[in-house]
Parts: sequence; C-alpha cells; structure tokens
Amino acid sequence: MSIIVQKYGGSSVADAERIQRVSNHVIELKKQGHQPVVVVSAMGDSTDHLIELAKSINPSPSSREMDMLLSTGEQISISLLAMAIESQGYQAISLTGYQCGIQTDHFYSKAKINDIKANRIITELEKDNIVIVAGFQGMNENGDITTLGRGGSDTTAVALAVALNAELCEIYTDVKGIYTTDPRVVKTAKQMSQISYDEMLELAKLGAKVMHPRSVELARKNKMKLVVRSSFELSAPGTEIIEVNEMEKAQVRGVTLDDNIVRLSVPDVPDRPGIAYKMFSALAAQNVHIDMIIQNLTHDDRNDISFTVPKDDLELVQGIINQFIEEVGANPLLVRDDVAKLSIVGTGITSDATIASGLFGALYKMGINIEMISTSEIKISCIIDKARSKEALNEIHEFFELQKVL
Amino acid sequence: MSIIVQKYGGSSVADAERIQRVSNHVIELKKQGHQPVVVVSAMGDSTDHLIELAKSINPSPSSREMDMLLSTGEQISISLLAMAIESQGYQAISLTGYQCGIQTDHFYSKAKINDIKANRIITELEKDNIVIVAGFQGMNENGDITTLGRGGSDTTAVALAVALNAELCEIYTDVKGIYTTDPRVVKTAKQMSQISYDEMLELAKLGAKVMHPRSVELARKNKMKLVVRSSFELSAPGTEIIEVNEMEKAQVRGVTLDDNIVRLSVPDVPDRPGIAYKMFSALAAQNVHIDMIIQNLTHDDRNDISFTVPKDDLELVQGIINQFIEEVGANPLLVRDDVAKLSIVGTGITSDATIASGLFGALYKMGINIEMISTSEIKISCIIDKARSKEALNEIHEFFELQKVL
Repeated sequence: MSIIVQKYGGSSVADAERIQRVSNHVIELKKQGHQPVVVVSAMGDSTDHLIELAKSINPSPSSREMDMLLSTGEQISISLLAMAIESQGYQAISLTGYQCGIQTDHFYSKAKINDIKANRIITELEKDNIVIVAGFQGMNENGDITTLGRGGSDTTAVALAVALNAELCEIYTDVKGIYTTDPRVVKTAKQMSQISYDEMLELAKLGAKVMHPRSVELARKNKMKLVVRSSFELSAPGTEIIEVNEMEKAQVRGVTLDDNIVRLSVPDVPDRPGIAYKMFSALAAQNVHIDMIIQNLTHDDRNDISFTVPKDDLELVQGIINQFIEEVGANPLLVRDDVAKLSIVGTGITSDATIASGLFGALYKMGINIEMISTSEIKISCIIDKARSKEALNEIHEFFELQKVL
Repeated sequence: MSIIVQKYGGSSVADAERIQRVSNHVIELKKQGHQPVVVVSAMGDSTDHLIELAKSINPSPSSREMDMLLSTGEQISISLLAMAIESQGYQAISLTGYQCGIQTDHFYSKAKINDIKANRIITELEKDNIVIVAGFQGMNENGDITTLGRGGSDTTAVALAVALNAELCEIYTDVKGIYTTDPRVVKTAKQMSQISYDEMLELAKLGAKVMHPRSVELARKNKMKLVVRSSFELSAPGTEIIEVNEMEKAQVRGVTLDDNIVRLSVPDVPDRPGIAYKMFSALAAQNVHIDMIIQNLTHDDRNDISFTVPKDDLELVQGIINQFIEEVGANPLLVRDDVAKLSIVGTGITSDATIASGLFGALYKMGINIEMISTSEIKISCIIDKARSKEALNEIHEFFELQKVL
C-alpha cells in the first residue's frame, strides 16, 4: 500500500459531471491498491463570484474575513467529491484544512504552512477511507481560517505528500503537462515528458502558469516526485518533475514570455555609496519583487537606475520611488509598459557561451533590440519590445529546436 | 454594558443590500452601549441550492458530508456581515460554530448542543468586537462539523444567549411577531405583544413556523427573555416571549392549523396486552413523532388503532406498521391524507370547560365532524376534514374573539 496525493484544480471540479469523472479516477487509484489523498480547489469560478459578492459589500474587506469567506469554496468541493465517491460504494471522508492539521502563520490571504499534524488523515486512511482535502486553506494558532494565496492548492498537495511520505504527488490541471513554451502562442510547442525541479521552478517564476513556484520549491526541497497531468485527458501521461539528471550537454528546455511587467527608470540619481541600497531596500520592505536592474553612469556623479517590477505592484512602487526621488534629488520617474521579458531556461545553459550568443544573435537578426539582460545558472532573460515579443517567442522556440525536446 | 444576542434568518440576509441593512441595525445596538452577538443563517435559499447540487451527485448523500456542505452557507453569511460592519468603521469578527466552542453530539444533520465553551466570544467582546456567529452548526468530539437540523439557528441564538448570560435574545424574521393565527389564512389575525413560553411552545409545535419548539424550550428552561421581531420593519416592537404571567381568566391566545399530517388506521388489531406498546415502541425507535392516538374496541377481541404522524414520516411509518401487521395479524393499513389538525392554545384553557365545549359547539354548528381530539394543559386539538379546515380556522378565530387579543 502506498499513499498517492492527487490535486485537482477548479476547472477539474467545475460541475457535477466533472466531479463524477474525478471520483471515477480516484476510485481507479484505490482499486489499484493505493491510498488516495485528494486535494481539491473550489469549483470553477466560484471563488471569483465570492470575491465579487464581498466587494459589493465592502470594497476593501479585511483579509481575515475574506479568508473566512473564500475557504467555503473548497469546503463545498470536498463534500461533493466525497458524496460522488460514496455514491459508487466506496468510503470517503472530506476534511477541511484545519481538520487535516494544516497549521499556518498569521498572514491572512497569503499564509505559509508552518506544520502539518497529519494524524487525522492517517487515521482515516487506516479506516480504508479515501481522504478528500480542501486545498488552499489552513488554520493559524488562534484557530482562525487562513488561505495560502496563489498556488495554494498545489502547495497543500505537495506539503501533504511530504508530510505523509507519499510515493507521488499528481497535479491534475487543464493542460496536458509542461510545454517548451506557451502552446497558445507557439503552435509547435512541445509537451515534455520530464523536467528538472530547477527548470520547472524557473519556468514557473517566468510566467508558465501551470504550477506556482512555491509548490515546486517545496517539492524540490523534499525531493517529492511530482507529475503534472490533464484532468480532461486522464490517459495522457503528463510531465514528470524530477531531480536534475546529469545531462552531458547543456540544452534549452523552454522559452517563456512575461508581458505583465513594467520598466521603471530613475534618471540622474546622485552617485553616492549606499544610494542604490537605500532605494531597493525601501522596495524590499514592501515585499516588492524587483527583477532586473541596470545602472548606467551618465555624467558627473549621476546614474540612471532602471529596473522591472510586476505590473500589479506599479502603484505601490511609484509611491515608494517618488518619495525616494524627493529625498535624494533625482529626475522624475519614467514608466514604460510597452516591454516584455523573454527568457530561455535549461540546466547549465549559462555555462555554454554558444547558447547566450545564439539567443542574442537570433534577436539581432529579427531587428529586435535587447534593453536589459539578466541571467541565473539556468536561465537567460531579455527585456524586449512588447509589440514584437510573440513573434520573437516563436522564432526563439524554432531557433533552439524546442519542438524536438523530449 | 450588556450582551444582547440577535438572530437573523435567511431572508434577512438574502442579498448584499439586506446584509447592509442588518449591519446598520447591529451597529445601532453597539452605539447604544450594548455588546451585540449576532447569529445568522445562510443567505436566502442558498441552502436549497446546495442540497440540489448534492442530490445531483448522490441521491442519498451521507449526513456527515451534507453537514460539511451545508455549513458553508452560514460561513458565507457571517463573513459578509462582518465585512459590512467593518465597512462602516466598526470592529467585527465572524466565528464559525466550532470557533464559538459549540460542542454537539454525533448525530449529523440533527445534532444537539452538549456544551458551549464561550471563551473565544468573550475574548472578542472584550476587544470591543461585534461578534458574528454562524447559526445552525457545531462540532462533535472528533472535530467534525455537525448541523443542528430544523430551527438550528434559533437554537444557536438561544443557547449562546444562555451561555453568555445575555440580557435578551432577539429573533429577527420575516414576520412582525407571533400572531393569534396564520395571517395568510385569517385576515383578522392579531399580532400579540406578549406570549408565555408555554403558549409559544404549543403554537410552535402545532405548526406556527416562526420559531422552532426546540429553541423555545431551551429559552423556557433557562428563563431567557426572547423577542420575535421583523427584520423588514425594524421599528416594529415584535412579540415578547416571557414566563407565564398569572392570568385570572383562562383565555384562548391562538389557533393553529396543521395540514401536513396523515391519519393512519390499523383495523382489527388483536386485543392482547402489550400489543399497542409493541407497535408504538417500534415507531419510537425510529424517532417518529406520533401525535394523536385513538383505539376503538370493534368486535371480539379486536381493536382499530388510529393515529396521526407528520406527512414526511409516512414512508418510514408504513414500512414499520406493515411489518407489525404481518407479525400480529391485522387488516391492511389505511392511510388518509385529507385531514388537518386544528388547535386552540392558551394557558389554563383545559381547566375551563366552557372553552372546550365552545370549540366543539362552533365546529358542530358549521357541520364539521371532529374525528379525533387530544388535549394538553394548554391546548385542545381536533382532527377535521382538510377541505373545510381554513374556513374552520377563520370561524374559530372569530368565535374566541382573537382579533381582540393583546
């Protein structure tokens, strides 16, 4: 007997029929002799409806009450899935986040899991129950309901798989697996059979929506075997996410495009020690994720500092930077939202100089200017003109022959 | 400072606008210097929608999973009401049944409250929060969510009022208070300013839908002052439910009609000691509430036994009685659903012989046959022809001059 954790997203349980289909698939796993622990999200767009209802009552509701409200979405899904399983003569039990012993910190709407006391789940598995768990939620020390924020249900699934020492964690979603790039933009995008945690993590951070970086990071840290599969084509094998296999040759495995960013420039910042630190620490204090930074010495003791941030943070960042400009004396902030970030991902690619030069060369041949570059061990990102970014995505996918990736 | 518990039913919180109105009313109470503890039901007919959804997945879902599902309804209401209060600059906190320490037995869908550990509520009141509580729900020893069944939110409100030693428990509903009879049937029905627990209890048991007997019983036992008021006409004074005031004269206070009953007859039951006991204990074991019983000796050692049960229990009762008939040898069960139960209620009315004879005489004058009679200290019930029962209700209301009741 082995525990397998499966996670089904909102679109997989959007209506009664889909819930029945999920229940069949879970029962299959049980029949094969496994102990299924099933994590589900709220049905379809029910969370959006609840948010809308809340905003009609209070435009800026407290996050504690929002968590109280939104956690009902998963509670509905788990009870319905348990009923569907029971209707076929199998034993099931639904458990909310707190009933599963998912203990979180106090940050409503973006709580982090501190610990999982899995004894209740283990007891139910011993009673031969299929255990259905509400994703996305937990409980803080006060006994109040918290939600885990974006990617919360994936995080619940991986964290439970780790806590239960599961054999495998399967993430069922509305796509067949992880692709070399966005198949809606690039027709020849290829689904990969395997990918390393590191590559998956970069792809997730760079805008591949399939899994949230946070859950991938948790799986990597605990070496939990992950599989991303389609809940609509259950026979499709999906993509396995595994430890790095030592590849002989560095290879580009994916290309991503993120156009949900803005580029900010602060011209003529005085060139004094600690001034960049002052600016970026003010941003970090507000939990703003700054991506790429360029600093150019312009003329006598003055710098232009440019950086990119997620579009959602723009308002917050403008407030912080304008205050900074006032304090140190710089020219007014320049904001550009006509840019996009194109990235290539693959283990070891930055240690093979031909790959970077190949990327830059291909963009140059298209006449596309690279405004900023940043690299990590396994990715190279370029800020380019948004208007031509989809064309570039196709070209780079083709250039690195990603349609042939395995 | 005094604690006042208010309960708002589903129709009072059916949409965003009504939730805003309730929040205003609660804030009024807070401004007057009270400590409001507010119990709410699920919004409008949201519970019906959830039941429908469940039945589309499993025609006979387990009651544990139904409770898991249905308890989300109140959780949505409480968070929205808390948000509405917060939007006006007052502090509020929503608490689910288990967060309020409402501990119940293990009977899903009809749980009874064993105990309330009110320390969380008290802590929140001390922090100057308006406390919003999910009605209808609690938690059993296993940490599983239970619901309290019919009248559950009223029961939550009264039980909390008792546990918190509240000054008052106000039940807000879609009528203005307790009437002498059903105002939809009798135009001259009069709202009473006061009524005793005993009378209210009988009225509730006899089909007045405003409050469930269970919550009235709990209030009576603990002498908790109750007021039934309208959430649509907040300035209306409602009906106070108080201890018996020693009235000099027995007086009819209300007339009720219950046509949700069936009359069952088992003809030719052998007249042996213990045989009625055998039959009724089989029914009691299934928790069937038997109302009126008549046993007629017909001929040599044979009895006809007739009784009434709620229509909802008919299928269950038929199964039990048919088995009984087979065991003891009696004629086939006769079922009649063309009957209704008309009752008059008032403290001391059965000790004043003129009241019973007045009732019987008035029905006789209308040419309405009384098929069964039962009495308690404060009520007299008659089974009559359903077709003429509304006419009779009007006539009896008039006969006892209930339009003049205070």
